[in-house]
Amino acid sequence: MAGPCAVESFDQLAAAADAAAAAGARILRGGAFKPRTSPYSFRGLGEPALRWLHDIAAARDLAVVTEVMTPELVPLVAEYADMLQIGSRSIQNFPLLDAVGRAGRPVLLKRGMMSTLDELLASAEYILSAGNPDVILCERGIRTFEPQTRNTFDVVSVPLLKRLSHLPVVADPSHATGQADLVLPAARAAVAAGADGLLIEVHPDPANALSDGPQALLPSDLAELATSCGAVARAIGRAF
Amino acid sequence: MAGPCAVESFDQLAAAADAAAAAGARILRGGAFKPRTSPYSFRGLGEPALRWLHDIAAARDLAVVTEVMTPELVPLVAEYADMLQIGSRSIQNFPLLDAVGRAGRPVLLKRGMMSTLDELLASAEYILSAGNPDVILCERGIRTFEPQTRNTFDVVSVPLLKRLSHLPVVADPSHATGQADLVLPAARAAVAAGADGLLIEVHPDPANALSDGPQALLPSDLAELATSCGAVARAIGRAF
Amino acid sequence: MAGPCAVESFDQLAAAADAAAAAGARILRGGAFKPRTSPYSFRGLGEPALRWLHDIAAARDLAVVTEVMTPELVPLVAEYADMLQIGSRSIQNFPLLDAVGRAGRPVLLKRGMMSTLDELLASAEYILSAGNPDVILCERGIRTFEPQTRNTFDVVSVPLLKRLSHLPVVADPSHATGQADLVLPAARAAVAAGADGLLIEVHPDPANALSDGPQALLPSDLAELATSCGAVARAIGRAF
Amino acid sequence: MAGPCAVESFDQLAAAADAAAAAGARILRGGAFKPRTSPYSFRGLGEPALRWLHDIAAARDLAVVTEVMTPELVPLVAEYADMLQIGSRSIQNFPLLDAVGRAGRPVLLKRGMMSTLDELLASAEYILSAGNPDVILCERGIRTFEPQTRNTFDVVSVPLLKRLSHLPVVADPSHATGQADLVLPAARAAVAAGADGLLIEVHPDPANALSDGPQALLPSDLAELATSCGAVARAIGRAF
Repeated sequence: MAGPCAVESFDQLAAAADAAAAAGARILRGGAFKPRTSPYSFRGLGEPALRWLHDIAAARDLAVVTEVMTPELVPLVAEYADMLQIGSRSIQNFPLLDAVGRAGRPVLLKRGMMSTLDELLASAEYILSAGNPDVILCERGIRTFEPQTRNTFDVVSVPLLKRLSHLPVVADPSHATGQADLVLPAARAAVAAGADGLLIEVHPDPANALSDGPQALLPSDLAELATSCGAVARAIGRAF
Repeated sequence: MAGPCAVESFDQLAAAADAAAAAGARILRGGAFKPRTSPYSFRGLGEPALRWLHDIAAARDLAVVTEVMTPELVPLVAEYADMLQIGSRSIQNFPLLDAVGRAGRPVLLKRGMMSTLDELLASAEYILSAGNPDVILCERGIRTFEPQTRNTFDVVSVPLLKRLSHLPVVADPSHATGQADLVLPAARAAVAAGADGLLIEVHPDPANALSDGPQALLPSDLAELATSCGAVARAIGRAF
Repeated sequence: MAGPCAVESFDQLAAAADAAAAAGARILRGGAFKPRTSPYSFRGLGEPALRWLHDIAAARDLAVVTEVMTPELVPLVAEYADMLQIGSRSIQNFPLLDAVGRAGRPVLLKRGMMSTLDELLASAEYILSAGNPDVILCERGIRTFEPQTRNTFDVVSVPLLKRLSHLPVVADPSHATGQADLVLPAARAAVAAGADGLLIEVHPDPANALSDGPQALLPSDLAELATSCGAVARAIGRAF
Repeated sequence: MAGPCAVESFDQLAAAADAAAAAGARILRGGAFKPRTSPYSFRGLGEPALRWLHDIAAARDLAVVTEVMTPELVPLVAEYADMLQIGSRSIQNFPLLDAVGRAGRPVLLKRGMMSTLDELLASAEYILSAGNPDVILCERGIRTFEPQTRNTFDVVSVPLLKRLSHLPVVADPSHATGQADLVLPAARAAVAAGADGLLIEVHPDPANALSDGPQALLPSDLAELATSCGAVARAIGRAF
């Protein structure tokens, strides 16, 4: 899965989708509704962004995953997206978990930055127990005392989650590190640890991104990452 | 503010409210909608609990504070409660912050177990910028590596928040410690550090509580706590 | 206990000792050997500082506590000091714990910034099991994700340690907060939570201190702190 | 580098050394002086263990790395070992860092379980500035809120340390995870992230180990790990 943090315009999204498709991604990601710490930050374009996601992905034979932040918007987002993302700040938004459990769409459930693995699995259980068996767990870094990176990428959570549950586990090295030049080694590490997929932020012009520019890869870097991670996957006996 | 973690029955709430009133509390707390880590835990009684809160509090000249977990329930909860509580798991539920910002009721905003003080103040800004000036900040413990207590009570956040903002700051020693015999020293510490109020869990029968029994005080302990904290408040030149 | 972080000169130490004595302190603290993160920081004056500590304290009827960093210096430090301090970075320096366990002097054992309470008590056990029954435990803040303060002051550790052991427990609000204007509320909170004593940094000229200036109190502030903490102690039924 | 946590007997060490040599290790590790949280745990066999390490390694053409815990033992340990290990609990034992800086032996410096990368590099600077240029940095997991693993393996510290310094960086997945079945995925992840080497605990009979048995590999598992990590190294264009 690859794409920009936030959908900013049709052209930006189309360029990112071209990069994702060229690198072999199957799913286009992009935020239409953005959870932001400050009320004065860019909070997403809403429904128009959903429409662009749908149309741009369809034209490139990609599926769409995008975040939904509140129960009443689940039907709208489910209309345009193939997979619903629960962001790390919503991991214990229980009414939202109930709602996506009834939405009939696979769910990408991101670990909170301060969730234990037990809490992540209990949140998955909300969705599963509401009748939705298609939950993908995502490690995206946890909050620790180390200030050099945005979060600390807990790579060992990948084999642990696979031991503790039957659900697929993917990793988001972009949010876990917060720095573009660390995304490649973190992605390789995730694949070597057994991750079933990756979620990578790519932007045609990271320096001018409206959110999370410092962690977005250029299209050319995404292609290199895909090649390198494919080689690591084969080294441990897996396809990618 | 005092009361049970969750409203379990009319009689349980009435007994807790009697204890709160006797100890000098001004506000009755109690959960009608409960955020629970597991979907199989007791999740609250919903609207009937709201009605009991309203009626039992009114009969004792107390105000009511109770948690609201999702934007669409804000109008219902605001009908019965004098103050809306945003729980620690909802601190970055931005659509909910927007909704209580427009609800015309004071808001008790609990720090997340993973929130920095900057994030707590940014969440308060969501409510303030939506037009609601009545926000009370609440320290309730943060998650650290120490396993002896449920959370680590960050008592210094009280004077820090008062330096960083003009908002009132209260403390919740019940959730911060998770153990009834630590609530008294933690409450005294909060008052000594300058807290403007306390949020204390009290239950007529803690051993049989449906949630958080180990941290609930008996009515007699609540009265002792109120007396002792009053003495500490006077020692630093404040009324209580 | 009060005094400067590091002994810098005879005059600086004498002025700080006057302030400590005036505020009612019983013990003069000051570092002769300083553990510093960087090898290029001021690392203490060594034996001359020990001699000044001894002479200046004796002239004011104060006892001396000072840090010892390595087993071979225990006899030298024990010659000048009434109490040996094990600093937070030495909490698991087991040969040093063994050495002070045989030194015939009371030991002030500071919790590490990464120590669980179980680890602190296990380190105390090294000293006790070597034959030294006089160990004082000191809470001085732990490392968490919160960046606003140098450490997070774990005030609830005070009653917890008193429940888990019979040893006296003191608090160091200066290192716990790292900011002079937070020392007073943190000190009050520690006393309210049941601390048996306080360790406060005082400096006649904090702006020009060679280490930890931002957290040192002026002599006048130390006097105010002593008065205020005495009032809090009486409010909970203790002398101070 | 591979070997047992603690040297327990000549035969145990010889069996572990055979396993290490068979798996292609260059350096035999094993503790003669063991830092243990409790004074009542097994604390190592001391000088006899050093002699066995030296003799058993020499017979298999391996070098020796072993921990030194206090400055006065540096000359003794340096007589038997080719490389001196500073354990995670000694990362800020500054007199010890000074001493190994003057010992004329390469130093394996393990990150503390609560050290920031800046602190790790400052501790390396103590050794370098004392005149010893041969320092190897070792990531071994940090303490976080997650209870499922002994520590949280901070795999991204590997590329970060290589960006911040010119020193070689190795990883210790045994201590980072604390569980034998997680050592393989963590080791692969470390290699994929660019680690220059690995430190692996191996024991001929983990169930009866005197320390850290649950994280020790069987000899057969070590051989498999070496093969798998070699394949990952080649996949990212490195030899192993």
